[in-house]
Amino acid sequence: MPTRPAFILHEQPPSVGLEDGDATRELSPLWLRERTQSPDQLEPMTQQRLFDSHAIDTALTLTEVTRIDEHHAALAFSDGHRETYDLRVLADELDDTATFPAAEPWDAGLDPARVRFDWTRVRDEPANFRAALDAYLRLGHLVLTGVPTDPERILEVGRHFGYVKETNFGRYFEVYSRPSGNDLAYRSVALGPHTDNPYRTPVPGIQLLHCLINETQGGLSTLVDSLKVLERLRHESPEGYALLKSTPVRFRFVDAGTELVTQRAMIQTDDDGHPTGVHYSPRLDALPLLSDAETRVFHAARQRLGELFSDPAYERRFALAAGELMLFDNSRVLHGRTSYDSNEGRRHLQGCYLDSDGPRERFASLLKHRESIEEVA
Amino acid sequence: MPTRPAFILHEQPPSVGLEDGDATRELSPLWLRERTQSPDQLEPMTQQRLFDSHAIDTALTLTEVTRIDEHHAALAFSDGHRETYDLRVLADELDDTATFPAAEPWDAGLDPARVRFDWTRVRDEPANFRAALDAYLRLGHLVLTGVPTDPERILEVGRHFGYVKETNFGRYFEVYSRPSGNDLAYRSVALGPHTDNPYRTPVPGIQLLHCLINETQGGLSTLVDSLKVLERLRHESPEGYALLKSTPVRFRFVDAGTELVTQRAMIQTDDDGHPTGVHYSPRLDALPLLSDAETRVFHAARQRLGELFSDPAYERRFALAAGELMLFDNSRVLHGRTSYDSNEGRRHLQGCYLDSDGPRERFASLLKHRESIEEVA
Repeated sequence: MPTRPAFILHEQPPSVGLEDGDATRELSPLWLRERTQSPDQLEPMTQQRLFDSHAIDTALTLTEVTRIDEHHAALAFSDGHRETYDLRVLADELDDTATFPAAEPWDAGLDPARVRFDWTRVRDEPANFRAALDAYLRLGHLVLTGVPTDPERILEVGRHFGYVKETNFGRYFEVYSRPSGNDLAYRSVALGPHTDNPYRTPVPGIQLLHCLINETQGGLSTLVDSLKVLERLRHESPEGYALLKSTPVRFRFVDAGTELVTQRAMIQTDDDGHPTGVHYSPRLDALPLLSDAETRVFHAARQRLGELFSDPAYERRFALAAGELMLFDNSRVLHGRTSYDSNEGRRHLQGCYLDSDGPRERFASLLKHRESIEEVA
Repeated sequence: MPTRPAFILHEQPPSVGLEDGDATRELSPLWLRERTQSPDQLEPMTQQRLFDSHAIDTALTLTEVTRIDEHHAALAFSDGHRETYDLRVLADELDDTATFPAAEPWDAGLDPARVRFDWTRVRDEPANFRAALDAYLRLGHLVLTGVPTDPERILEVGRHFGYVKETNFGRYFEVYSRPSGNDLAYRSVALGPHTDNPYRTPVPGIQLLHCLINETQGGLSTLVDSLKVLERLRHESPEGYALLKSTPVRFRFVDAGTELVTQRAMIQTDDDGHPTGVHYSPRLDALPLLSDAETRVFHAARQRLGELFSDPAYERRFALAAGELMLFDNSRVLHGRTSYDSNEGRRHLQGCYLDSDGPRERFASLLKHRESIEEVA
């Protein structure tokens, strides 16, 4: 657990600092004023400000700073506002990582039991649901067992974890083969690791695949954590990593009726620049127009990514049996499957997509629910 | 119409260049090899490559370049591949802007007739639908007239333009007041310009608001184009603009049951760095932790944005009558409403969200459809 930040209060001239290693970082009076805790300035339930953020005077200063006790300080501002701040609340404001478990990149050594949950218990027991969501947020995927194989059950599971996202494939889609099937949709070829729909805006956040029938020996499911692979790529080729992170490439989908085109970088980052996943679909991407030297660095990095995504050291490979459902972050975790012999029997999966933030919303709701129970007890 | 790029072919040493003003830009052999037009390397309908992009040798070179005629060149590569390229197809590859109309920032002077369309004609006449989509892609919003006011009609309109996105507010939501209503949900206060749900991931791309009943004189709808305002902010304060574009801020939504938190920059850009809109909700945003000097630059820019968004020079303001529906890009176009007197009568709107790329997909489909008709004719 990280140490709580310590505040340094100065009465003259009035200032509030933050201990940052050996140095002190001064907090802007604007930052402090905006983080009012005063009940007449915040709506009690939503904690929304009752004033617009831009109403604060840009030239605002602190006029008084007085320590009251270990956890409280009285502050006065040049706009006449006076308030007693709880320093612990301010400290929480500085630590946004507290609510959600952080991502834990994994490789082939991951213990499968950590992501395997019984669907009925996840659905009916809040503690079990919370454990499943915790695993999903850390590891980017889950395997649910005991999901009945009647049609459209996938939508019930989807709605439990978030909001089903409709696409050009409908609310859900069918993945199946038939003996002697020869249409592309019924092909039984291997599918290399990839993410889905990089050409959509927004890209589907989460994918669910539910196995209804599997009478074949092959067709194993594969999953790879791009966060683990990206750690290695960044180590091996910082320049290639930087190019894949900053250069938009074109992803295009065309069929008889439509065309979708998007420009986006292959390595996806949050607004702080930390990697959160990839857009990776090596039949749909296109080299950007760079100098020949940069093109070769870019291509070599893309090639190395492809090698690492297929490396058994990073890959989970397992049979998804009838009644099992896998749910994975479509940008973080790449999926694929091995080939199979459709003459052995049928293989039928249903798939659907969810928006990204459903599991975070569900997780936060369960935490709130637990807090309110603890307050009552 | 932009001029088509011209190619410079050299036979010895073999190279393909692109005329770029006075200079020539050499095209990487990797870029050329990946853009194969050869029928044995591309799936005919989807134009998807039949090989993975990373399969190309990083050290690939051009071994022969021969001009065949004005529009064709024969190229050979060190991996043994030989192909005749149509240079017009290569030129199209270099011009991604061709398919979709570009955004046209607008202000209060916009001619309202440009965005006003009759719903029945949009639904039933492809040429009218294409004109409406063209206006939406250029101007970021539409007003549809003659939308019947029976419930859930909004979902029919939504499905015509794209994919309805479910959120914590459901598939659609109600915005209404009643005489003497006093609950927050029934308040008749003015709402300043804002974008919806900046705390969600993904943020809803498009919002629809359908007026079922309006018996009041006030409650005018307001719309502002952030692209126009951002042009001015960038001109007035390049530093403030840059900070708002690059610094993640926290947007948080809390209610009794849940908590949603996201970090994202207020000015939204595509992967090329061009502005596409904003996340703007001045009751939900939070100043980032910067130095005091940077905080003041950031805050002043945010304050100026707020002023400009409320400036009549940038604002469209109009009564949305019963049977009218407005549809707008939730990141590009801010919405709000003036206050009204709920004692005058009822005001009832229904709202819903769509994913961003529905209109682009529909537009491309209509173009394809037209092309196929012209080919037959």
